[in-house]
Amino acid sequence: MLQWLKFYRRDQLPGDISAGLVVAMMMIPQGMAYALVAGLSPVVGIYASIMPPIVYALFGSSMTQSVGPMAIISLMTAAVIGPMAPAGSALANVLAAQLALVSGAVLLLCGLLRMGFLANFFSRPVMSGFTVGSAIVIAFDQLHTLLGAELPHMHLPSAALGVGSLVLLVAARQYLASLLKLCGLPLVAADIGAKLAPMAVVLGGIALMATTGLADMGVRTTGAIPAGLPHLNLASSSAHWRPLLQPGLLIGFIVFLMSMSGAQALAQKRNEKLVSNHELIGLGAANVASALSGGFPVTGSLSRSAVNFAAGANTPLASLITAVLLACALLAPTGWLALLPLPVLAATIIVAVLGMLEMGILHTAWQYDRGDALAWIATCLGVLVLGVEAGVIIGVALSMGTLIWRASRPHIAVLGRIAGTEHFRNIERYPAETQPELLVLRIDANLFFGNVEAVSQRIECELATHQSARHLVLVMSAVNSIDTTALMALAELNQSAKRRNIGLHFAEVKGPVMDRLRNSTLLQELNGKLFLSTANAWDQLHTAKDVA
Amino acid sequence: MLQWLKFYRRDQLPGDISAGLVVAMMMIPQGMAYALVAGLSPVVGIYASIMPPIVYALFGSSMTQSVGPMAIISLMTAAVIGPMAPAGSALANVLAAQLALVSGAVLLLCGLLRMGFLANFFSRPVMSGFTVGSAIVIAFDQLHTLLGAELPHMHLPSAALGVGSLVLLVAARQYLASLLKLCGLPLVAADIGAKLAPMAVVLGGIALMATTGLADMGVRTTGAIPAGLPHLNLASSSAHWRPLLQPGLLIGFIVFLMSMSGAQALAQKRNEKLVSNHELIGLGAANVASALSGGFPVTGSLSRSAVNFAAGANTPLASLITAVLLACALLAPTGWLALLPLPVLAATIIVAVLGMLEMGILHTAWQYDRGDALAWIATCLGVLVLGVEAGVIIGVALSMGTLIWRASRPHIAVLGRIAGTEHFRNIERYPAETQPELLVLRIDANLFFGNVEAVSQRIECELATHQSARHLVLVMSAVNSIDTTALMALAELNQSAKRRNIGLHFAEVKGPVMDRLRNSTLLQELNGKLFLSTANAWDQLHTAKDVA
Repeated sequence: MLQWLKFYRRDQLPGDISAGLVVAMMMIPQGMAYALVAGLSPVVGIYASIMPPIVYALFGSSMTQSVGPMAIISLMTAAVIGPMAPAGSALANVLAAQLALVSGAVLLLCGLLRMGFLANFFSRPVMSGFTVGSAIVIAFDQLHTLLGAELPHMHLPSAALGVGSLVLLVAARQYLASLLKLCGLPLVAADIGAKLAPMAVVLGGIALMATTGLADMGVRTTGAIPAGLPHLNLASSSAHWRPLLQPGLLIGFIVFLMSMSGAQALAQKRNEKLVSNHELIGLGAANVASALSGGFPVTGSLSRSAVNFAAGANTPLASLITAVLLACALLAPTGWLALLPLPVLAATIIVAVLGMLEMGILHTAWQYDRGDALAWIATCLGVLVLGVEAGVIIGVALSMGTLIWRASRPHIAVLGRIAGTEHFRNIERYPAETQPELLVLRIDANLFFGNVEAVSQRIECELATHQSARHLVLVMSAVNSIDTTALMALAELNQSAKRRNIGLHFAEVKGPVMDRLRNSTLLQELNGKLFLSTANAWDQLHTAKDVA
Repeated sequence: MLQWLKFYRRDQLPGDISAGLVVAMMMIPQGMAYALVAGLSPVVGIYASIMPPIVYALFGSSMTQSVGPMAIISLMTAAVIGPMAPAGSALANVLAAQLALVSGAVLLLCGLLRMGFLANFFSRPVMSGFTVGSAIVIAFDQLHTLLGAELPHMHLPSAALGVGSLVLLVAARQYLASLLKLCGLPLVAADIGAKLAPMAVVLGGIALMATTGLADMGVRTTGAIPAGLPHLNLASSSAHWRPLLQPGLLIGFIVFLMSMSGAQALAQKRNEKLVSNHELIGLGAANVASALSGGFPVTGSLSRSAVNFAAGANTPLASLITAVLLACALLAPTGWLALLPLPVLAATIIVAVLGMLEMGILHTAWQYDRGDALAWIATCLGVLVLGVEAGVIIGVALSMGTLIWRASRPHIAVLGRIAGTEHFRNIERYPAETQPELLVLRIDANLFFGNVEAVSQRIECELATHQSARHLVLVMSAVNSIDTTALMALAELNQSAKRRNIGLHFAEVKGPVMDRLRNSTLLQELNGKLFLSTANAWDQLHTAKDVA
C-alpha cells in the first residue's frame, strides 16, 4: 500500500503531471457519456471519476491503471437498472450507486478471501467476443441519440451535428496523429494530442450551441450540471437489495476481468508485477467509494489507461492529479457543460467503442483452434441476442465447457520397449516390443473429475483388446495431480482388476502425487506394486507370471 | 437401439421377469410418494413410471437402469412448481408435465449435439454433498406429513402410524435380510425381500385404515386414484414456458448426472459400456414421454436400479415388464390405494432418503484432499440454506472453481543436467549442473487460459532470479495441448524476450502440439530454435553465446 509514494522520485513528477492533465481532459466527456450509456444523469459519470481513482491509488497494485466509468460496465449497469427505474431518474441514480456498493463489497470479499484466481475463468477468445458484442450493442443504442430521433426517423439538425462529429472524430483517429507529427510535434505528443480530439469536438459542439440557434431547432443537450463536489451518498432502496445481488456479483466479476486484462498488458510493457488479490481490493474499494460519492460501478479502462501510460504516468499520482482537476472543474462554474449537445456525446461514445471492435483474436483462433473461434462467435452472438448479462454467463459456460470437453479426451499411450534399451515409447509412433501378458499405459494428463470417466473407459477398452494381459502398469510420469474423484475411480479400477485377477501396478509416480496418495487406502489395497521406473516394472513382471 | 432385443437369449428371461415384478412392487409406493414430494397428485407418480421406462428401453444404453420418479428430481420439481401453483392442483400437474417436456427437449438436444461430456461437470464430492443436502431437505419436508400436523404440533393417531411405520421400516432395513436368511431364504432372495418392506408396510397401512376407525380420527390418505391408463396429455400453460426454461435446463442437467452416476456404477459391475450420448437421448425421450402421458420429470434411480440389478435384470425387458404390471394395476380397481395413509407414505420417503446420507465420500475427501471436502460441505450447506436449485449452481461453480484454482498453480521445474549423462532433472530434487547463461524450465501442465497467467508470472520470476541467462529453454515434454489464450501468451513472451535480447527455445514439443503450432505464426517469429531433446538444446546453446 502506497509503496509508490514511499519511493517517489522527483524525476517521475513531470510524467505524472502531464498524464494527469491529459486523462482529465479525456475524462470529462467520457464520464458524462458513459453515465448516459448507463441511463444516469451526466454528473454521475464525473462523480465516479473523482473518488474511485483516489481510493484505487491507495489500495491497487497497478501503476498506470485509470479507474473510472467504462463503456461495458455502463452497459451492464443500464441492463440492470433499466427495468427498475426510468433513465435519468433520481431512483436510477440511487440504484446505480447501490449496485456499485454491492459489486464493491463482492470484490472486497473476494480479495480478502484471496480469490484472485477468478481472473482465470475467461479465455481470451471468449473475453474478446464479449467485448466486441458489447461494443456493437453500445454503438447501436447510441444511434437514436446521434440522429436525434428514434429510428427510422431522424431530427435533421441533431443528425447533422452528430454525424458531423462522428466524421470528424473518425478522421481524427485516422489522420490527426500524423498531421500533428507533420506540424513538428514529437511522436508521443502527436499521439496524445490525437486522443484529445473528443474533448475538442465537445468544446466545438458547446461553442456551436452557444452561438447558433441549434438549441431552438430542438437539438437536445445534457442540461444543467450541478456545481460542487460530490456529497456523501447513503441513499439506498431497501426494496432493491435482493434483485441487485446477482447482477452486482456479475458486474463485480466483469469489473475485475476488464481491469486485469487491461492492467496486465500495460504492466508487461514495464515488467511491473500485478498482484491479482490487491487488484480485487483496489477495485472493490474504488467501487465502494464510487457508491458513497454518488457514482456508479467503475473499473480500469484499457483505452484510458493506455493514454495515461503513453502520456507518461509513472505512478498513481497521475490519477490523483486527474481526480483533483475534475474536482476543480466541478467547483468552477459548470454552466457551459449544460450546453453540450447530446448528438456530439453520442458520436464520442460510438467512436470510443469502435476501438473495441478488435477482430485479431477471432482471426488467430480461427487459424489455430476452431473450438476457441466458435466460443468467440457464440459469446458475441449471446451478447447481441440475449443481452450483456446472459453474455457473461454464456462466456463462463463456454470457457468451462471447452475446458471440460478437452479434458474429456485425455491422451493415453500404449507403451512398448525400444529393443535393447531402457526407453519406453508409444507403440503407435515407434517400433517398440511388447509382452502379451503385460499392458503398459502412460496417462498424459492430470487425473480429475473432468477426465476420470474417459480414462476409465479407455483402460477398459485396452484391457478388452489385450485379453492376454495379466498385469496392467500405469505409467504416471505425466500425472501431476489426482483429485478425490480420480482417487475413487482408481480404487474402483483396483477392485475390478482384483476380481479379474489382473495385477494393477503404478510406475514413475511423482513425489507430490505419492505424498498425497499415502493419505488414502489405495496403496495398501493395491492389487500390485509400485515401481520407480517403467523398466523395473517390465523386468520384474516379465519373470513373475502371477500377481505379486 | 434395441440391440439387446436382437440378441435376446431365452436364459435371460427368468431374471428379467423376477426383476420386473420386484421393481413394480417397489414402484407403486415410491411413485406415489415422490409425486407427493413434488407437490403433485399421487397418480402422476404412477403415470411417470409407465411410459418413461418403455421409451428408455428403446433409446437408452444401460441394461439395468430403472427410469422413473426419483426423490431429488421431485424435490427440484417442487422447488420450481411450488411458487407457481398450489400443491396437488390441476395447474401443478400441467406445469410438472411441461417442465418434463422442457427438460426432455434439453436432454435430446444435448444428445443430438453429442454433449455427453457434460456429465464431467460435477466432481464426486460435490455430487455427494448435493445428494446429502437434498436428502436432508426431503426428509425434513416430510416431517409434518409423518406427524399429521405442522411442527411443533402433531396429530396423535397420524404420528403413531407414521412413527410406527418409520420404526418398522428402519428395523426392516437393518435386520429383515438377515432374518429372511435365517428362515432359509437364499442370500439374494433375502436381500430383495427386505427391499419390499415399504410395499408390505404400505399394504399394512391400507389394511389398518380399512379395518379400524383411523380415518374417522383424521388420518389423511392419498384419496381416490383415478383408474385407467394415462391419456395423451397436451395441456400446457403458455404463460409459463419462459419461467420454466431455466429450471428445465437445470433439472435436465441433474437428471443426466443422477442417471449417469447410478448407471455407471452398475455397468462397471458387469463390464458393460455406457454411451453418454445415448443416455442423453434415452433420458430425453423418457422425459418427453413422461410429459406426454401426464407424468413429471424422471431419471434413473440408483437405489431402484440396484434392486433391479440384484433381482436379476439382464436387459431392459425387466423395465418393460414393470411398466406393464403398473399399467395393469391402473386397469384393475384402484379403490384400495385411496386408503393409503399419508403418514405411512411419508415414512417410506424418509427411510428411502436416509439411504442417501452417505458420508463415506466426505470422509475420504477429508483425509485425501481438504479442498474437495470443503466443496462437499459448501454444496451441502448451499442446498440446505439456499435451496436445491442454488445448490446445483453452487456445485458447478465449486467444481469449476476448484479446477481453475488448481490449474492456477501449475508445476514448473528448473532443470539441470545430471553430470555425465543426457538426463535432465529438477534441480531442487537432484544434484544437477546448470549453466549461468542457460535457463531450462520444464512446464508440467497443459497450457490453457486457466494457468497461462501463472505460467507467465513464474517465467518472469525465474528470469528475474537468473539475470545472467541469455537463453530460455522451455521443455514441453509434459504439455499435451496449448489453447489460443496460451498461444497468445507465448507470443507475448517471445516479443518480450526479443526486446530483452534473450533467446526463447522450445524442446521436446509433442507431435500433436507441434502440428497445431504450425497453424500459427509463433514458430516463424520465434526468437530461438526448436530442439528435439533437452540435451540437444543444452549442447548447442552452450557453445553459441548469442541468440541464433
